[in-house]
Amino acid sequence: MRLRSPDAAALLLIGAAGGLIGDAAHVETATTGYLDRGVPFIWNSALWFPVAVGLGTLAIGEIRLRLPGSLEPLGPREFVAAISAVIAIYCLTAVVSGFPESVSTSLVASVSVVAVAWLVRTRADLICGMLAATAGPLAEIAIVAADVSRYAPSADGLAGVAVWLVPLYLAFGVAVARLASTLATGSLRIRAPR
Amino acid sequence: MRLRSPDAAALLLIGAAGGLIGDAAHVETATTGYLDRGVPFIWNSALWFPVAVGLGTLAIGEIRLRLPGSLEPLGPREFVAAISAVIAIYCLTAVVSGFPESVSTSLVASVSVVAVAWLVRTRADLICGMLAATAGPLAEIAIVAADVSRYAPSADGLAGVAVWLVPLYLAFGVAVARLASTLATGSLRIRAPR
Amino acid sequence: MRLRSPDAAALLLIGAAGGLIGDAAHVETATTGYLDRGVPFIWNSALWFPVAVGLGTLAIGEIRLRLPGSLEPLGPREFVAAISAVIAIYCLTAVVSGFPESVSTSLVASVSVVAVAWLVRTRADLICGMLAATAGPLAEIAIVAADVSRYAPSADGLAGVAVWLVPLYLAFGVAVARLASTLATGSLRIRAPR
Repeated sequence: MRLRSPDAAALLLIGAAGGLIGDAAHVETATTGYLDRGVPFIWNSALWFPVAVGLGTLAIGEIRLRLPGSLEPLGPREFVAAISAVIAIYCLTAVVSGFPESVSTSLVASVSVVAVAWLVRTRADLICGMLAATAGPLAEIAIVAADVSRYAPSADGLAGVAVWLVPLYLAFGVAVARLASTLATGSLRIRAPR
Repeated sequence: MRLRSPDAAALLLIGAAGGLIGDAAHVETATTGYLDRGVPFIWNSALWFPVAVGLGTLAIGEIRLRLPGSLEPLGPREFVAAISAVIAIYCLTAVVSGFPESVSTSLVASVSVVAVAWLVRTRADLICGMLAATAGPLAEIAIVAADVSRYAPSADGLAGVAVWLVPLYLAFGVAVARLASTLATGSLRIRAPR
Repeated sequence: MRLRSPDAAALLLIGAAGGLIGDAAHVETATTGYLDRGVPFIWNSALWFPVAVGLGTLAIGEIRLRLPGSLEPLGPREFVAAISAVIAIYCLTAVVSGFPESVSTSLVASVSVVAVAWLVRTRADLICGMLAATAGPLAEIAIVAADVSRYAPSADGLAGVAVWLVPLYLAFGVAVARLASTLATGSLRIRAPR
């Protein structure tokens, strides 16, 4: 691990909390549903879901620190905005999941590209985004294929999962790359609020 | 009053106009409804509503000028963007008010936090936001309790008013703190458009 | 033409692609519909539609270069964000077109003003926005009057077309003015990605 333990814990908790909030919106809008109820739940999510998102967040962060390219830290306000922006896009997918999938995908993709253009600084940040945009949907396809959960008929155009998962995970991956860069450079600690 | 009269009038009018636009969206979507029709109306609002929002906007602005912390002015384009962003979040609450309240609240809160992170500069700005996020919903709870207006069943989880009022008023309060800072420092007047 | 041929082609293609994506969202949500089916189609659009949007985009860009005022280039990330933001607003109109028209118009207008405030730099940029906000809706009114296409009853308040076309075209025009400024100054070519 290249992240110090408290920073790794922070990244894991940020991912888990964001996953819980977004997943709750998906479940409440019936965008997704859990088929396997024989597992412990927390809020609207199976317990393994926020754990998986947290570990995925940590993994993307650790990968970023192993890639070449300068670590560009976010300021404290940008750090908060980056997390909130990804959660907002996550919640947006829940709100528009009932529309024809081309419509929801166009909207989510265009909003995600705005977020990516704002947050990306280095090629390594973009690689993290593309990695998340590949691994995330693939993992969800496997979960759906295993009959553990399902996506609504209006949001299952990518082998059973939503096409808009790709831009959502892209924005997530780029944001996490910047969060990890920020934590690793310790810049959050040295900038005291006024 | 620490604001010069024209600046105070500007803040009052901005608040009243924003309140009228947002309230119209709430009434049109049946997010809210007036129960007491025996009062004069303007557009979709009881006349007292834009007056109250305008006075509240002015009050937050005056409070900001009495708090310590440097007054950080917005540029002219940011000034317009701050007003429009709060109106956009206000209208967003109308559009998503029919969703389960946890979903609408998560979306409105995450978008509001992005706006707050963009606009907040000093602890005093944040205090204005928290003050608005407390006083605003409390005032609306009192209005609903007095049977003057009501919120839709999908948006009444906070003692009869919408939970997303809290992040909406938070973004409003922080934005108004910056608007007041801008007007008080006179920076809008000295920056002529090119 | 003041744009070099490859830059003119880029602007035309960006406009045509954006038009295709947004129009598909409009057609899929029945915000708009083509009445004349005796023409070739591409995706959900009559072939003439992306051609017209592409030519309109090029025209706005050429007009910008003929207006006084310094050409303020966008950075590469802002260039992508400007395009995506306009497409996002376009898709947003599709998603909210079923709401009462005052609601959809207030939301689209407030979001568009945020985008305009972010992108506008010179009076000439704003003139391009106002030109697009005038010519675009007028052209669509003529198309609807000729029974070639129609807008849904919830989005036809401006002589048969949607009122929110005005702020949508405003944001489009300002963004295109900056895209053209960027291409004309050649600043995209000299800033290599890291």
